[in-house]
Amino acid sequence: MEQNIFHLQYAMDTFYFLVCGALVMWMAAGFSMLEAGLVRAKNTTEILTKNVALYAISCTMYLIVGYSIMYDGSLFLAGIETVDVEATLGEFAAREDGFAGDSIYSSASDFFFQVVFVATAMSIVSGAVAERMKLWSFLAFAVVMTGFIYPMEGAWTWNGASVFGMYTLGDLGFSDFAGSGIVHMAGASAALAGVLLLGARKGKYTKDGKVNAIPGANMPMATLGTFILWMGWFGFNGGSVLKLGDIGNANSVAMVFLNTNAAAAGGSIAALVLSAILFKKADLTMALNGALAGLVAITAEPSTPTALQATLFGAIGGLLVVGSILALDKLKIDDPVGAISVHGVVGFLGLMLVPLTNPLTEDGGASFSGQLIGAATIFVWVFGTSLIVWAILKAVIGIRVTEEQEYEGVDRSECGIEAYPEFVNANN
Amino acid sequence: MEQNIFHLQYAMDTFYFLVCGALVMWMAAGFSMLEAGLVRAKNTTEILTKNVALYAISCTMYLIVGYSIMYDGSLFLAGIETVDVEATLGEFAAREDGFAGDSIYSSASDFFFQVVFVATAMSIVSGAVAERMKLWSFLAFAVVMTGFIYPMEGAWTWNGASVFGMYTLGDLGFSDFAGSGIVHMAGASAALAGVLLLGARKGKYTKDGKVNAIPGANMPMATLGTFILWMGWFGFNGGSVLKLGDIGNANSVAMVFLNTNAAAAGGSIAALVLSAILFKKADLTMALNGALAGLVAITAEPSTPTALQATLFGAIGGLLVVGSILALDKLKIDDPVGAISVHGVVGFLGLMLVPLTNPLTEDGGASFSGQLIGAATIFVWVFGTSLIVWAILKAVIGIRVTEEQEYEGVDRSECGIEAYPEFVNANN
Amino acid sequence: MEQNIFHLQYAMDTFYFLVCGALVMWMAAGFSMLEAGLVRAKNTTEILTKNVALYAISCTMYLIVGYSIMYDGSLFLAGIETVDVEATLGEFAAREDGFAGDSIYSSASDFFFQVVFVATAMSIVSGAVAERMKLWSFLAFAVVMTGFIYPMEGAWTWNGASVFGMYTLGDLGFSDFAGSGIVHMAGASAALAGVLLLGARKGKYTKDGKVNAIPGANMPMATLGTFILWMGWFGFNGGSVLKLGDIGNANSVAMVFLNTNAAAAGGSIAALVLSAILFKKADLTMALNGALAGLVAITAEPSTPTALQATLFGAIGGLLVVGSILALDKLKIDDPVGAISVHGVVGFLGLMLVPLTNPLTEDGGASFSGQLIGAATIFVWVFGTSLIVWAILKAVIGIRVTEEQEYEGVDRSECGIEAYPEFVNANN
Repeated sequence: MEQNIFHLQYAMDTFYFLVCGALVMWMAAGFSMLEAGLVRAKNTTEILTKNVALYAISCTMYLIVGYSIMYDGSLFLAGIETVDVEATLGEFAAREDGFAGDSIYSSASDFFFQVVFVATAMSIVSGAVAERMKLWSFLAFAVVMTGFIYPMEGAWTWNGASVFGMYTLGDLGFSDFAGSGIVHMAGASAALAGVLLLGARKGKYTKDGKVNAIPGANMPMATLGTFILWMGWFGFNGGSVLKLGDIGNANSVAMVFLNTNAAAAGGSIAALVLSAILFKKADLTMALNGALAGLVAITAEPSTPTALQATLFGAIGGLLVVGSILALDKLKIDDPVGAISVHGVVGFLGLMLVPLTNPLTEDGGASFSGQLIGAATIFVWVFGTSLIVWAILKAVIGIRVTEEQEYEGVDRSECGIEAYPEFVNANN
Repeated sequence: MEQNIFHLQYAMDTFYFLVCGALVMWMAAGFSMLEAGLVRAKNTTEILTKNVALYAISCTMYLIVGYSIMYDGSLFLAGIETVDVEATLGEFAAREDGFAGDSIYSSASDFFFQVVFVATAMSIVSGAVAERMKLWSFLAFAVVMTGFIYPMEGAWTWNGASVFGMYTLGDLGFSDFAGSGIVHMAGASAALAGVLLLGARKGKYTKDGKVNAIPGANMPMATLGTFILWMGWFGFNGGSVLKLGDIGNANSVAMVFLNTNAAAAGGSIAALVLSAILFKKADLTMALNGALAGLVAITAEPSTPTALQATLFGAIGGLLVVGSILALDKLKIDDPVGAISVHGVVGFLGLMLVPLTNPLTEDGGASFSGQLIGAATIFVWVFGTSLIVWAILKAVIGIRVTEEQEYEGVDRSECGIEAYPEFVNANN
Repeated sequence: MEQNIFHLQYAMDTFYFLVCGALVMWMAAGFSMLEAGLVRAKNTTEILTKNVALYAISCTMYLIVGYSIMYDGSLFLAGIETVDVEATLGEFAAREDGFAGDSIYSSASDFFFQVVFVATAMSIVSGAVAERMKLWSFLAFAVVMTGFIYPMEGAWTWNGASVFGMYTLGDLGFSDFAGSGIVHMAGASAALAGVLLLGARKGKYTKDGKVNAIPGANMPMATLGTFILWMGWFGFNGGSVLKLGDIGNANSVAMVFLNTNAAAAGGSIAALVLSAILFKKADLTMALNGALAGLVAITAEPSTPTALQATLFGAIGGLLVVGSILALDKLKIDDPVGAISVHGVVGFLGLMLVPLTNPLTEDGGASFSGQLIGAATIFVWVFGTSLIVWAILKAVIGIRVTEEQEYEGVDRSECGIEAYPEFVNANN
């Protein structure tokens, strides 16, 4: 009888991981649609190609090397025939922490859940460098980012490895529940490095300091992408509880779903209202980025705030993202979809909000200093290594398309396929 | 050992709620895409903005006041640290109804499942008032609808509160499993009130009694929206069993999934065939609305019909919706997406179908008189209060855009962003 | 206590089926978007109508006759009141194989999972015959395919019935885990029969042997469709383990999710790289078809390969699909979306890969000869009966629209609704 319960608990926690992982995989579609909606028609096929390919590369690189670097594990390379049911039952029976202890689940489900996170980090980059970067340089960067750069910082944070033998983030009071910093700020840091080397799109900033809006081609697509991300985030945050199968953890997973939703709602409303005040118009793209900012803001700690706090944290994220998007344009940092603001600036906010509801105690939690050190570690590592990789790519094969290719659209030069061949006038 | 089973059952029933809730949240994307596909290009950004914002407002208003009105509960405002695992285990041990009794699950998961229903009700409104209503008036209405109007009737129905101390619907033989009336007809009643005060779009009805078709701009979007709703409805109806974790309830959940799918299929086929007979063309929009009508028709009782009955009930819904859309146009009630027909007329049908397979007995079920009284209660309350709110909004800030704004499209005046800036000729 | 565990296991395995089934239903949206994106604007409404209607017809026909033919079952036509909880508990108690034995779950959930597979098989057909087939002839074929042709071969394979009393595939070493052959190659075989009788689209092949590319109208839609299919495939393959609720099966389900994802990634990368080598451009449509090919290739056996093997198998599928698409064009077999290559050619590959990781032993598995005989059986049956049905339809009501209708687009003649009335110039 006892064994039967172990079987069920194992199956439940495994299935929970798989469902959450499938939702995170779905975020790849969300980023694709969001970015495809926010670029111009002539650069749409290319951004779609990048998104499909970066997801595929992420999955493959993390399988081959990334997971091993991050968790010293290689079981996933084995097949299920190597999984010993008796040994697993023994693990359950032997543990001292009783029923509510650590989850025991299929290592394949763990890998599946981890691998889709890598793709999320990489997806953030593609939007920021849209409309002017060479496709193959981007994909080459994706290989290094998902196979090395991300797994290294993932090992320091979620796996508790020491940072080059110098310090261990967990000991310093760093906590990042589902990855405001580890995934989102990391992706944005890589993106920022790329954008700085790449430069702005032609015509975005004029010599007299004016910022030209370059409207996206397809608002329903961008909205769909946001809703997909919103939905997928339930898996992203909800699965990061890492266990479902007892009352305490089930409560935690439920609270995370509720807070994730509340934060997105708060962020969306705040950004919409602020944009209406600033621009006298209800700016859909700000409402969308506000929702995403709310999601990023709650990601570092979605389980301890009350739902009202989550709404407020999301709203702060929503206000911040509007300000950040405007500020980056002042700095002439050209990010066509606002990814650096949404995931980087608000990712940092998310980290700094953790100590408010989950302060450092003997049982864990975060301190402001720990969060600052963690954020700095992630940023310095990811930005620094990314800058080197982008610079090498720039020197060797180039990272920017020619002016003529940019004018004609990268779809033609990079993909040879127009995204909407019948809709757009040749004159556009 | 016994406790371990309680842990698992709690976790399973909680997860079931969360998965179903995520699917219902996904319906927000469905309504957005459906409506974005069925309006003209020049009004697309605005309807997307409305949909994102109404979802965010619904979640926030229901959190702050709605849930308290509907269920006298405020636990959801607390965090998970207040949840007492020992007390929950005691609840399990103490109950007399044994294993197959009422579900015990995370209250946060319950709130999450409830909150997405509110958004569904509100989503119905946005489509009906599309292409001519002021954005901020609509959002102001959303605040009242989701914070007060819906929770009041929700309390009378799903929470069993008496209607202003006069009568209790449950005692009269009213039953609405997942909300054909409580959610769908309620949303349509609010929409009807708005449409009556708002009037038809310019050019929809000519003086000589002709009805001009105003084609939607993007059929793939409308189709996608319908498929999203179809999928999300598995959560909407399936989660409304409220418990998964024993054989009887698991059978019920499975039957609900099966019947929900069967009814949508029946509705789609019936509407497509009828439209082919009437118009000599296979009208995609009718097939889509037929599927949605099938879904609405089965929502009041998806667990007791056989799959064949569900198919037939769906087909009746599909036939009815075609007739209703034509009839509303005769009455010059202009509903760009057919929401009043799909959710209101067929929502009423759904209520009236319940006694056929779930007649009133000592153990529950519905009577025709009970369903009529319930439907009347919902309609009078929601339509009446909505009319008042819309009228106040009309008097104070206006609910309709100017003729010039309507001609140019509300995207320009309300949002300042075109949905498809490169696709549409300025002459359109 | 023991009974409580049975309750939970039953509920868990039922819910697992339902979640996987909902994901497979979602694939209907994936096929719709993929096909809508890959045809020209003037044929988009019609392909959407076909997809909605074929899904509805599949569900209804399989309910009425298909399931009975395939599994001799009719329980699904009954309602839940006929399910006997005590008897189900007795089933659990009586079985000799203990906890890890066959799954016992709601028969309604089994039907739900089965029915969405039928729709998948049928969805494959619609893409291949796009842009020139009469809508109602297609739907008439759908009735026969989903009510008779597919259920017959389904009975021979998954239900182990003998092929017209001659031989039994299971005894010959045939194994097709989730349906590379039974679903995908079957759909492609029916499609091939239709395409051969239908002929190519006007202008696709010129007299001097040139192949004209006819670009699809909406690349974001096609990409969305691919991501939807990718996600839905987790349910398609993952649910085909047929049981979740013990350690061994949970491991298997997890491995299937992981391998399904890995194969799609491998297929996408391989097809993208090969197309870049062949065409000097990063061909998005090849990357999409490569991902789908990877998914089809792993579907016949996603549980026994390691993740690295799955990636390689997917990559082989990705390479093969590019070659097949080019080869079919040489043969002037006009398949607008590449369905015959993706699902037929790669479906056959998937079958032939099974013995590599799951060779025939006393406990099951596959032999190359068994796979060949199985593939031949499926192809001969489905292709043969389909050819007869298409031929009858051609003789009686015709299967091809007139040249003028084809030139103007089938949206106008068949549906009377343009997909994008505001985007496309009349001159296109």
